[in-house]
Amino acid sequence: MTISSKDLLGIKGMAADEIKLFLDTAATFKDVSERDIKKVPTLRGKTVINLFYEASTRTRTSFELAGKRLSADVINISTSTSSVVKGETLLDTARNIEAMKCNIIIIRHPCSGAPEFLSTRLKSAVINAGDGFHEHPTQALLDMFTMREKLGRLDGLTVAIVGDIAHSRVARSNIYGLRTMGAKVRVCGPATMMPSGIENMGVEVYYNMDSAVEGADVIMMLRLQVERQTAGLFPGVREYARFYGLNRARVNCAAKNVLVMHPGPMNRGVEISSDVADSASVILDQVTNGVAVRMAVMFLLSGGTKGEA
Amino acid sequence: MTISSKDLLGIKGMAADEIKLFLDTAATFKDVSERDIKKVPTLRGKTVINLFYEASTRTRTSFELAGKRLSADVINISTSTSSVVKGETLLDTARNIEAMKCNIIIIRHPCSGAPEFLSTRLKSAVINAGDGFHEHPTQALLDMFTMREKLGRLDGLTVAIVGDIAHSRVARSNIYGLRTMGAKVRVCGPATMMPSGIENMGVEVYYNMDSAVEGADVIMMLRLQVERQTAGLFPGVREYARFYGLNRARVNCAAKNVLVMHPGPMNRGVEISSDVADSASVILDQVTNGVAVRMAVMFLLSGGTKGEA
Amino acid sequence: MTISSKDLLGIKGMAADEIKLFLDTAATFKDVSERDIKKVPTLRGKTVINLFYEASTRTRTSFELAGKRLSADVINISTSTSSVVKGETLLDTARNIEAMKCNIIIIRHPCSGAPEFLSTRLKSAVINAGDGFHEHPTQALLDMFTMREKLGRLDGLTVAIVGDIAHSRVARSNIYGLRTMGAKVRVCGPATMMPSGIENMGVEVYYNMDSAVEGADVIMMLRLQVERQTAGLFPGVREYARFYGLNRARVNCAAKNVLVMHPGPMNRGVEISSDVADSASVILDQVTNGVAVRMAVMFLLSGGTKGEA
Repeated sequence: MTISSKDLLGIKGMAADEIKLFLDTAATFKDVSERDIKKVPTLRGKTVINLFYEASTRTRTSFELAGKRLSADVINISTSTSSVVKGETLLDTARNIEAMKCNIIIIRHPCSGAPEFLSTRLKSAVINAGDGFHEHPTQALLDMFTMREKLGRLDGLTVAIVGDIAHSRVARSNIYGLRTMGAKVRVCGPATMMPSGIENMGVEVYYNMDSAVEGADVIMMLRLQVERQTAGLFPGVREYARFYGLNRARVNCAAKNVLVMHPGPMNRGVEISSDVADSASVILDQVTNGVAVRMAVMFLLSGGTKGEA
Repeated sequence: MTISSKDLLGIKGMAADEIKLFLDTAATFKDVSERDIKKVPTLRGKTVINLFYEASTRTRTSFELAGKRLSADVINISTSTSSVVKGETLLDTARNIEAMKCNIIIIRHPCSGAPEFLSTRLKSAVINAGDGFHEHPTQALLDMFTMREKLGRLDGLTVAIVGDIAHSRVARSNIYGLRTMGAKVRVCGPATMMPSGIENMGVEVYYNMDSAVEGADVIMMLRLQVERQTAGLFPGVREYARFYGLNRARVNCAAKNVLVMHPGPMNRGVEISSDVADSASVILDQVTNGVAVRMAVMFLLSGGTKGEA
Repeated sequence: MTISSKDLLGIKGMAADEIKLFLDTAATFKDVSERDIKKVPTLRGKTVINLFYEASTRTRTSFELAGKRLSADVINISTSTSSVVKGETLLDTARNIEAMKCNIIIIRHPCSGAPEFLSTRLKSAVINAGDGFHEHPTQALLDMFTMREKLGRLDGLTVAIVGDIAHSRVARSNIYGLRTMGAKVRVCGPATMMPSGIENMGVEVYYNMDSAVEGADVIMMLRLQVERQTAGLFPGVREYARFYGLNRARVNCAAKNVLVMHPGPMNRGVEISSDVADSASVILDQVTNGVAVRMAVMFLLSGGTKGEA
């Protein structure tokens, strides 16, 4: 089986089989990073461009490592050093990069839809590394990979996603993927951070965190963008932590062996207590799995098939 | 045949044979970027330093890719992260880099003459990636490569270069190279952007764009540095576009099959209309050829001969 | 013989045998950078992270080259592009990096003790690339390597370190190492830049530079942080140069064949005259040796033994 698209733009509309292919392939690549020699020749002589219009160490580094462990040549381009400052359009920048004969363009952009816009105009494989409030598909894949690895399945799980649902591409991609894979999804946050019509995505909406986490198999905390406070979306960090922060008491209301997840970077003491982050979470497993998932994505988008991985 | 200098500082004074050697060698390297495995072992174990004192995604990326496709180790140093902020002299910075045993230093610098200054003091090969208002030799080589590839020759071509001639290192390098190779060069721009004595470079000067492009085989548009407006060199962007912008009507006055070129990044709707840029130009071919030309330059400066490429 | 620690945090407490092992191993690696193919497969498939919380071209580039010449995959993370801006703790950033399965984390940090803090919490090898006013161990190793290479021994040498002793991690690491290896160390600077109790480190304190350099085998000049002037530590750059700058006359008071050293970047005309820097110093040898020493450090921390190098 191979994947149907030349790009990875989002999880919306992706078939369960395809999600499963990504996860299964990631499992075979996870082993590479554990080896003494963390390198396979899979993408030798291919060119991978990391085109980041928003700063992100974590995601950029994860893609860079994934590319290098596949033996690709990886080039980083970030806004601060790019021609963007000279007023060139996104499309012109991307066309120029493609004209240098790259194979894969990984793009993070503050505008929703930027990766899709490029994908229809470029021959290169385009990977969405996060676009606006839209999607962050590799994050959802690594989250699902981690759940499946730890809990053995996705089907039938109850996953509570807590925080600023409205502004979270992580939440959106996970909702799409988890629903497709048969999980139940609860979303929880203050009304100011809950998008209208979210019920149409097949999720249950909670405004009370104690109810949202009750019996959950997975609690996925979202990062609080502290700058939302000045926008009036919440009254203060302490209030936020009290009503929507994950602490030990709330973990204890969830299912036994609940998985606590966070896409990082964490605000300790805000959306998650240090105690929970350090003892009860799989946050670092998510990071480890991120490299494996991104290797799998690059491999499959380069025409690899599951058997070859 | 090998090249005569250890450095590539400019096109001025370069013999036609040497230009031809660069272009012929680039032709053999162009193929590498088209392959499935875009990599040859030519510079394996060599160290290439990209020392950029001005931001430039396009040129830095092109050199970085060229180096990596030759299997060199490429290190990027840009001003924002460099010791320059600590007040070290250019020469001390370069000597330090050389002391780490690099083979090639690629330098972009706002001061004309900086690469030459270094070249006489360092054993490494120095490649000028653009210095002040002086030269940008790899740009001229890739431009000539593209003209020769598309039109079959340089000798006898009529090339119109339009824009801010006075502040353009791209124009200067192209004028030197094209004149040496037997092309006729017209330069065109507002009087405030035309250097005095430019006729001495063997070019024809035009202040009217319609006349300049008439019958031209190649129209090379220069980027308008919008910040020149505050310096009083032109009254406004709209006026500039009207008098010195390339549109369809002007393209139609040139030779049939005229090549429209631009070194990028473009200001769409200013010096070039989107219509012309997207349908009638070879701008992306220039970008593609840039990698090949830079591979050839690094190869030849490392002692490679044409037969080995 | 192998080294005793998984990390290189400082020279304090390091046994003479261990220092000697680093220096001897560096000698075998120095040759690699002189070869036509400057690359050995020693760390192929290993991941090295350059985590720099302070800008430094020189040190970052030296580590990057050392890693690449050992065939490791090297990833640069610098503050300006890192999640640090999002308020993540140092430990969380480092844990995330480690979760991606790196082998070596090289860290430069403005806070003394940051590398040690990480080293006890991470499995990766941690290399201190300079922390606050504490230590800069690879600088001391390369300095000692250079002295031993040029003068044949460390034991019995008289080394005068001149400048802002109080704020210099270079001075501290060198004092520890040189004392352990049997050298006599003099420190010299204005009283405002001399830490109280420095005598307890086994050094002789001088406030007069002419006396400090008299008969010295090595003069190690420290960089003046010009910003200390606003803090009132010295009255002006010219006064500083007069009293604590190295000029030809002072060189002539030292031992015949005195080594003049400087960790760079230099303030020419302040702590060192251009004449001395350009004709009588081994500053560029220090830079060359820095790459060799860092290759040796990475090799030994990766479990290499002297015989294998």
